[in-house]
Amino acid sequence: MTLIAESKAMHFVEPLPLRSGAAVHGYDLAYETYGTLNADRSNAVLVCHALNASHHVAGVYPGQDHSEGWWDSMIGPGKPVDTDRFFVIGVNNLGSCFGSTGPMHVNPDTGRVWGADFPVVTVEDWVDAQARLLDRLQVRQLAAVMGGSLGGMQALSWTLQYPDRVRHAAVIASAPNLTAENIAFNEVARRAIVTDPDFHGGHFYEHGVVPRRGLRIARMIGHITYLSDDVMNERFGRQLRDGLDIHYTTQDIEFQIESYLRHQGDKFSEYFDANTYLLITRALDYFDPARRHDGQLSKALAAATANFLLVSFTTDWRFSPRRSREIVKALLDNRRSCTYAEIDAPHGHDAFLLEDPRYLALVRAWFDRIGKEVGR
Amino acid sequence: MTLIAESKAMHFVEPLPLRSGAAVHGYDLAYETYGTLNADRSNAVLVCHALNASHHVAGVYPGQDHSEGWWDSMIGPGKPVDTDRFFVIGVNNLGSCFGSTGPMHVNPDTGRVWGADFPVVTVEDWVDAQARLLDRLQVRQLAAVMGGSLGGMQALSWTLQYPDRVRHAAVIASAPNLTAENIAFNEVARRAIVTDPDFHGGHFYEHGVVPRRGLRIARMIGHITYLSDDVMNERFGRQLRDGLDIHYTTQDIEFQIESYLRHQGDKFSEYFDANTYLLITRALDYFDPARRHDGQLSKALAAATANFLLVSFTTDWRFSPRRSREIVKALLDNRRSCTYAEIDAPHGHDAFLLEDPRYLALVRAWFDRIGKEVGR
Repeated sequence: MTLIAESKAMHFVEPLPLRSGAAVHGYDLAYETYGTLNADRSNAVLVCHALNASHHVAGVYPGQDHSEGWWDSMIGPGKPVDTDRFFVIGVNNLGSCFGSTGPMHVNPDTGRVWGADFPVVTVEDWVDAQARLLDRLQVRQLAAVMGGSLGGMQALSWTLQYPDRVRHAAVIASAPNLTAENIAFNEVARRAIVTDPDFHGGHFYEHGVVPRRGLRIARMIGHITYLSDDVMNERFGRQLRDGLDIHYTTQDIEFQIESYLRHQGDKFSEYFDANTYLLITRALDYFDPARRHDGQLSKALAAATANFLLVSFTTDWRFSPRRSREIVKALLDNRRSCTYAEIDAPHGHDAFLLEDPRYLALVRAWFDRIGKEVGR
Repeated sequence: MTLIAESKAMHFVEPLPLRSGAAVHGYDLAYETYGTLNADRSNAVLVCHALNASHHVAGVYPGQDHSEGWWDSMIGPGKPVDTDRFFVIGVNNLGSCFGSTGPMHVNPDTGRVWGADFPVVTVEDWVDAQARLLDRLQVRQLAAVMGGSLGGMQALSWTLQYPDRVRHAAVIASAPNLTAENIAFNEVARRAIVTDPDFHGGHFYEHGVVPRRGLRIARMIGHITYLSDDVMNERFGRQLRDGLDIHYTTQDIEFQIESYLRHQGDKFSEYFDANTYLLITRALDYFDPARRHDGQLSKALAAATANFLLVSFTTDWRFSPRRSREIVKALLDNRRSCTYAEIDAPHGHDAFLLEDPRYLALVRAWFDRIGKEVGR
């Protein structure tokens, strides 16, 4: 059966205090829900998104041929997170550019587009905003929270900020914080955007331009880090765009990988907001639950009471298995229940979005047990 | 004893045919020599440079306090490549920006600065140009050719293009070709430069500007790939620039690693030529001796007769040990003499330029044997 999706929005008048000290009020959150909330409201699953995704997690909009939901392989009727059993919620984070209030919208206090003045939001702020959305949906406790990459950080943060509101947490292809190298890649991408003359200090909307050059570079860098060296070699290797002929050019495309990257950069620059890119990479940089505990993750995770599923992928060099094992270690130090799987997959960080049968079977089994708990 | 360096230039009138089909004539090569050529002219060592280095390999210029030679730890009196025994030659490659003819110079045929019209040069072209320089210096056969990274590719190519002119070859932290990921990083750096509005299609000299934004981004990307994740974590980790205080900013510096990268980018953009960056990264992309042999490196290396030293560094993810082992395998397939060392070093690709005692001792021992061959 086809899952039909409908994009909704919830308006929040009351100010949301942010970790930076600022606050936003009068904001919208775009969200979607799939499946039905059961009578005792115990079968809700919140799905948190990563850098460039949205609340459109799964399903098709009326009239669509195929799903553009970013985790459609994972969520739907009969899928690992079965929407015949669970009430699944996808929400677009504050500061993003897919419907929730963000830099492209008007600041109600000034009447001007926020642009670069949109306040810095953190993973913790997003979780607070998501909790308010759940209040409105009358979901007091989640059966599970789940996410991959930056979404996994939100899932982890849920278990620390609202331990009594989340029974299970799936933290996939994630990390307890960014390494210096992770931050470095984010910073190069941000510099490419900020130094694009069309950025205008983040107020490019008023100039009728978009810092496309910077967004393209940012996306190309990001894309390299999402893939593994192996999968890039397999898919593109040293193939020339023009078969066997070398054209000896420094500015034109010579190798297939160049063509692929430029295409990815072009596409991204058409739809993604530059200020959102800055905000979301900063949320990644700042996330570090151990910071308030002298850098000791075990201390930080003592607050968590959920049952955990941790998944990593062998060729993921952005958030390597070692980073997931740090979380596992800290959970075990606290005698928490934790299932950990390291999936031998060639696709790098992107693997968490792909249809790897062993990975999907694992998540299915884990959610099947949760389904039984909620009598479904 | 202090090694005194002197930058020299050799002018070549005769055209140098290039792999692209073009040719350059009336060009200069900047070079330096250290030590003395022995009577039978058998103790010459050619040192090939990598992306952003020059012919100034070692020593101090008159009046300098300390050496700015890029391999000063390796080359000099009493050093692993001992200039009391060897006649060492450093040469700046054609198309570079440190004295040899390149895009910043005037095309004698048009009277205009070459800019982006400087012909594409390959590793093989550089080796041809180096061979002509050796002719002028009356060095028929090298005791050894050596280089790290892109310099290692030139050393390898020497053994294939001029097997009878090179007795030993040290190929350090190098690879038989670039992977798709290597090419991808080069391409992002090139796009950052080419799409900088100050690039003007490569003819920015005429506009009195320099594409600094692009050069900065290119250098930041490069720098990340030169270092290991481990060494970045050790040196910078998640340290904030302002100690313990987070400022919640998307455009200002928050982490030490950001400050470091911006500084590296700024410095680089002050002295490096944008067109040279394009040319040299392309030379890296194109290098692939196996291409003409159905991708079979063993077939390609059948032409080599030199004795080899291969060195790789465990944390080098740009040119990983696996890539050096491919060369070792291909040499052994051809029953060539080959010494291979994998140095357990934390510094990533940059390790080949650093003072690791085991690494330097190994190179010293290898050159000591060569010194005995030439009666020194």
